[in-house]
Amino acid sequence: MSIPLLRLSAHTTFFSVRRRKALVNTKSTNIFTHLSCFSMIRKKLLVDVDCGVDDAQAIMMALAEPNVDILGITCVRGNTNVENVCKNVLRVLQACRKLQIPVFRGVDKPILGKVISAGDFHGQDGLGDVPDPNAPGLDHLQSEGAVSAMIQIVNENPGEVSLVATAPLTNLALAVRMEPTFPSKLKGLYIMGGNTESRGNTTVCAEFNFAADPEAAYIVLNEFLCPTYIAGWEFTCYHKLPWSWCDAWLAQDTEKARFMARIFRKSIETSKSERSQAELVDGIGFVSCDSYAMAAAIEDDFITESEQVAVTVELTGTYTRGMMVLDKLGLLKKNHKAFVMKKVNMKRFEELMMDALK
Amino acid sequence: MSIPLLRLSAHTTFFSVRRRKALVNTKSTNIFTHLSCFSMIRKKLLVDVDCGVDDAQAIMMALAEPNVDILGITCVRGNTNVENVCKNVLRVLQACRKLQIPVFRGVDKPILGKVISAGDFHGQDGLGDVPDPNAPGLDHLQSEGAVSAMIQIVNENPGEVSLVATAPLTNLALAVRMEPTFPSKLKGLYIMGGNTESRGNTTVCAEFNFAADPEAAYIVLNEFLCPTYIAGWEFTCYHKLPWSWCDAWLAQDTEKARFMARIFRKSIETSKSERSQAELVDGIGFVSCDSYAMAAAIEDDFITESEQVAVTVELTGTYTRGMMVLDKLGLLKKNHKAFVMKKVNMKRFEELMMDALK
Amino acid sequence: MSIPLLRLSAHTTFFSVRRRKALVNTKSTNIFTHLSCFSMIRKKLLVDVDCGVDDAQAIMMALAEPNVDILGITCVRGNTNVENVCKNVLRVLQACRKLQIPVFRGVDKPILGKVISAGDFHGQDGLGDVPDPNAPGLDHLQSEGAVSAMIQIVNENPGEVSLVATAPLTNLALAVRMEPTFPSKLKGLYIMGGNTESRGNTTVCAEFNFAADPEAAYIVLNEFLCPTYIAGWEFTCYHKLPWSWCDAWLAQDTEKARFMARIFRKSIETSKSERSQAELVDGIGFVSCDSYAMAAAIEDDFITESEQVAVTVELTGTYTRGMMVLDKLGLLKKNHKAFVMKKVNMKRFEELMMDALK
Amino acid sequence: MSIPLLRLSAHTTFFSVRRRKALVNTKSTNIFTHLSCFSMIRKKLLVDVDCGVDDAQAIMMALAEPNVDILGITCVRGNTNVENVCKNVLRVLQACRKLQIPVFRGVDKPILGKVISAGDFHGQDGLGDVPDPNAPGLDHLQSEGAVSAMIQIVNENPGEVSLVATAPLTNLALAVRMEPTFPSKLKGLYIMGGNTESRGNTTVCAEFNFAADPEAAYIVLNEFLCPTYIAGWEFTCYHKLPWSWCDAWLAQDTEKARFMARIFRKSIETSKSERSQAELVDGIGFVSCDSYAMAAAIEDDFITESEQVAVTVELTGTYTRGMMVLDKLGLLKKNHKAFVMKKVNMKRFEELMMDALK
Repeated sequence: MSIPLLRLSAHTTFFSVRRRKALVNTKSTNIFTHLSCFSMIRKKLLVDVDCGVDDAQAIMMALAEPNVDILGITCVRGNTNVENVCKNVLRVLQACRKLQIPVFRGVDKPILGKVISAGDFHGQDGLGDVPDPNAPGLDHLQSEGAVSAMIQIVNENPGEVSLVATAPLTNLALAVRMEPTFPSKLKGLYIMGGNTESRGNTTVCAEFNFAADPEAAYIVLNEFLCPTYIAGWEFTCYHKLPWSWCDAWLAQDTEKARFMARIFRKSIETSKSERSQAELVDGIGFVSCDSYAMAAAIEDDFITESEQVAVTVELTGTYTRGMMVLDKLGLLKKNHKAFVMKKVNMKRFEELMMDALK
Repeated sequence: MSIPLLRLSAHTTFFSVRRRKALVNTKSTNIFTHLSCFSMIRKKLLVDVDCGVDDAQAIMMALAEPNVDILGITCVRGNTNVENVCKNVLRVLQACRKLQIPVFRGVDKPILGKVISAGDFHGQDGLGDVPDPNAPGLDHLQSEGAVSAMIQIVNENPGEVSLVATAPLTNLALAVRMEPTFPSKLKGLYIMGGNTESRGNTTVCAEFNFAADPEAAYIVLNEFLCPTYIAGWEFTCYHKLPWSWCDAWLAQDTEKARFMARIFRKSIETSKSERSQAELVDGIGFVSCDSYAMAAAIEDDFITESEQVAVTVELTGTYTRGMMVLDKLGLLKKNHKAFVMKKVNMKRFEELMMDALK
Repeated sequence: MSIPLLRLSAHTTFFSVRRRKALVNTKSTNIFTHLSCFSMIRKKLLVDVDCGVDDAQAIMMALAEPNVDILGITCVRGNTNVENVCKNVLRVLQACRKLQIPVFRGVDKPILGKVISAGDFHGQDGLGDVPDPNAPGLDHLQSEGAVSAMIQIVNENPGEVSLVATAPLTNLALAVRMEPTFPSKLKGLYIMGGNTESRGNTTVCAEFNFAADPEAAYIVLNEFLCPTYIAGWEFTCYHKLPWSWCDAWLAQDTEKARFMARIFRKSIETSKSERSQAELVDGIGFVSCDSYAMAAAIEDDFITESEQVAVTVELTGTYTRGMMVLDKLGLLKKNHKAFVMKKVNMKRFEELMMDALK
Repeated sequence: MSIPLLRLSAHTTFFSVRRRKALVNTKSTNIFTHLSCFSMIRKKLLVDVDCGVDDAQAIMMALAEPNVDILGITCVRGNTNVENVCKNVLRVLQACRKLQIPVFRGVDKPILGKVISAGDFHGQDGLGDVPDPNAPGLDHLQSEGAVSAMIQIVNENPGEVSLVATAPLTNLALAVRMEPTFPSKLKGLYIMGGNTESRGNTTVCAEFNFAADPEAAYIVLNEFLCPTYIAGWEFTCYHKLPWSWCDAWLAQDTEKARFMARIFRKSIETSKSERSQAELVDGIGFVSCDSYAMAAAIEDDFITESEQVAVTVELTGTYTRGMMVLDKLGLLKKNHKAFVMKKVNMKRFEELMMDALK
């Protein structure tokens, strides 16, 4: 596997005039970081989420990293409807005191319009069903839609943005259809989704993010020809953390840890159900699915082994619709190969996770 | 069948400020028409085309009608790539001296990205392969994309716009995904596409516009809950005109007739091929497919018999992918029924066609 | 369309020794017929049924024809389970005093094993739910299975047997897989099944006999390369008889007419339901589906217009699974073309139907 | 996992009169074995093969076991056409001096009739393209067909026969359709086929035996409700032997080893190709696929870990047609669970393999 070389770039004016107001705090942080870590290359992330609890964990990981700038968070239906997703992202940002990061409402239906249930793992509202009376209102959202915003942000930072997608890929699929050059302007794409051994966690053979919008996954895997890193379902299961680790993680005496403990309670309970345990590959434990894709985007050396292989998505199977397909025999004659994650630096993962709640 | 009542509405300010410049001429025409036909209800059309020769015929029919305002023409890949489609629309507008009508470039790939060949019926360039050195340049296009423009035009004229779609339905499908309320703001949708008796003209069982983007057709038939009128392939074949009529039509001594004769020559020749004749249902003749949907949008009494039935599109069949499906048994439990055209006023059709070249 | 020339053949010893016992009566009939119609070419039929009421009508039509020998009747699941089908065939034979004709039990599941409901049109027992205490027992069945019997009968009469199939094609599909030369030894194949205009009477787009076993229909249409005549659903609807005709038909003062009136009562009532009327193409009336295929097998000049076209069956469609596919564009590159019936001699049809109950 | 208890049974008259002639030698062997191993329970096997080299290895393993009686070997198209398969089986039996075992010709096409290429791994003739001028002729075949023979053999030995299937499952699927009680009379079914982690060795996601006849695999996995043991492709790869072991195996100074070395030469060479190595899971080496299923049928304690799970086959996927599907989430609501092999006694496997060539 080869990780493409990082491109040095000035990180000053990556927001358009339209969003300048919201970015004052971010900017001062930028300057501060710039001064203290003179030689550090800052990472520009665009994050596309269906903010359940694991998306929250991934977002908080990125927010905690001093050399990471989140240029925007785009929302899409997945764990819950897009309105809840927007609310959840704002709550996470508020808990981390980063409400200045622009949040965009995206699409509320998969490409074909056939919504599947996300079940109740993260609660009906996607964030553990523990409403917060002081949650920020939807007026904090940007007026621009997610798809347009993604295109614009990447246009303004060509070759510099890592897109981290931890949700059904609907927004991304629409972005490439609306603007065919969108993928080529990304620095990289980091996906949590799909599966590599036909182990379904939603349908018989499909993982949730891909099952929720197979057409979008198909479009993204076939048209995003940028460097693409995939944390599939089985991979995340093979890299789960012990529940004892999770206990210690949540027991940190910080506001963020208390926030996480509150929103995560329901998922932890649900994860003990027979169904949840049947979904897991290779034993039980704490699988923060979305955080692996985020860690890979944040940390260049995070992935220690990956398989470079052409991938696509099954659209028509009775049992396999939405299943990721790895073309190990080269039968599909695709030139583009994704990096399918196999092994990662788990020590660093634990650090990043710990930092997220500090 | 019930044709929804027309809503009387002021037709003054249906264009946004952004497009005002282009519309000066149109406006004066409007005023003139308004004065001369005081009580006439003007029709506002938005036309989505993949401008081959039959799209050209449909556009010219609309341009010739004094009580019709074309608010915009949106382009999409179909008979040829979207760049050619844009060029072709501009050539048609120039031939009719209506270059002031705004034209928008739309999507150049079907939803899933799998382009099928349109064959060579209308020529490689979609307009008979008779290049015009004086053709208007692509700088005449609006800078806004087709999908955004469609949404905006309909937002500015809620309940008043009839959308005539004579191409693969990609732009429409993206419009509803980007703006879920888009269909509910249409006055009506007039589609040339699909088939009713499994008579394919492109694949074994599918008509070209649907075969070229089955997912888009599926989305439109399932999510556009506005009054929807469909001129399917077999219907257009059952209402073909004799070639002798076509000869007389093209022999009119007008600039438009000469333009049409020039761009139509190749299609007329091709229509004599074995393959073209195999495609036709119910004998040979002149089938100006797209013009029936346009005539229905222009003329309230044009449709004399239609069948109100729930429709959808087959996405997964080996031979039937892209085939329109009519749920005559009510098995799909859909509330929305389309008006599938059965019979039309052919005398009026001939008049509208004749007028188009005058 | 060309009807293959009839081959003159001695019709004496077409039954194997094993079935000789049962055939004594048939043989004497044969001799009688032979003497009285010296120059007549006798027709050898093998009839495969899922004996509902329309199968009964078709069987009775054949039984009534003096120049027809039914070499065997094979049973298969369709309108009802195979046990009921066997019982029904025996009842029909008893009503016609032809119990000497050998009846064989066939397969009780479609190829893939997924049974669909036949609904209640012909009653739960397939024959109008009017049980007959004096019905013949299943001990009248031959011990040999239907598939083996079909193969053997055709082997013993190579090139002479017309196979009339008015049921799901499971038995036929198994026969060709067990004995690949089976189809080539048939004189002709007459099928009631499939549809030509995507008008489903069972699923959205599929006719019952094909919908009940799409794989079998696929195998038969692709591997029975003998002359094949298809009476599709729409065709039978276009050739329906008025209900007044049916009244007169049933009012004949014969034992057979009284039998038919008794078993047909329920179907006649059901045919007035909204669902049944929605299934019908081109208005209401009496459609004795299976009798057209039988009439074509009996009477060489019965078909007056047919279309010779390659046909196959859609296996994978969401809405179209089981739909017959006509390759009018020649895209499938199949050499074998079926004769799809378009027009028939309706005067002769009425006579044959009348004779059936005399 | 629970291995069903063996049923003690007299093993004397398991052949019908029709095959008695051929069995004289076998019988004397039986008596000998009976005397020497008084308490040993003899195993009755029916073996269904598409005799490539690995089938040959599996057959030779069974032939070498003193407590195993092969009641019949049925042939089916797979690695090569059914005629070659028959010839190959006869050659293997001759090499082992067991030509008295009855061999039956089975089906030469998959259920749907669509033959896929087996490639050239085992040579065009399936047995390494090293023709033997002294090979036994096809007159050594039984006259009965494979499907009938399977049914009859199992009927004559109800509850006692282990069916080992190392080929496309066409014969088995036809057997259950012809005789629905067939599976319930088996003691057990041992299948080499399918895959568990979507690792295709033939199409992108499917293993050869299932890919070659997906409908047959579907029918068998859904209708054979007897104890079913599956050695999937990945499992066999995880249990490969080193090529060095293979060298020693073939270097034995026996007639059988020389026979194997001769027919296996081509496969060994082909296995070094890029494509062959891409097919293998978990590194390179010697995978005698079919031998694991045979070993499991021969040796009760051979399987040391298995997963009991409902299985089926994908029939409609674009990339996944023919892929085995494991319903780990219990979504299919199937009562019957197969034993999917996970770990086996490799020491015993090596012994059985060694014995095969002694």
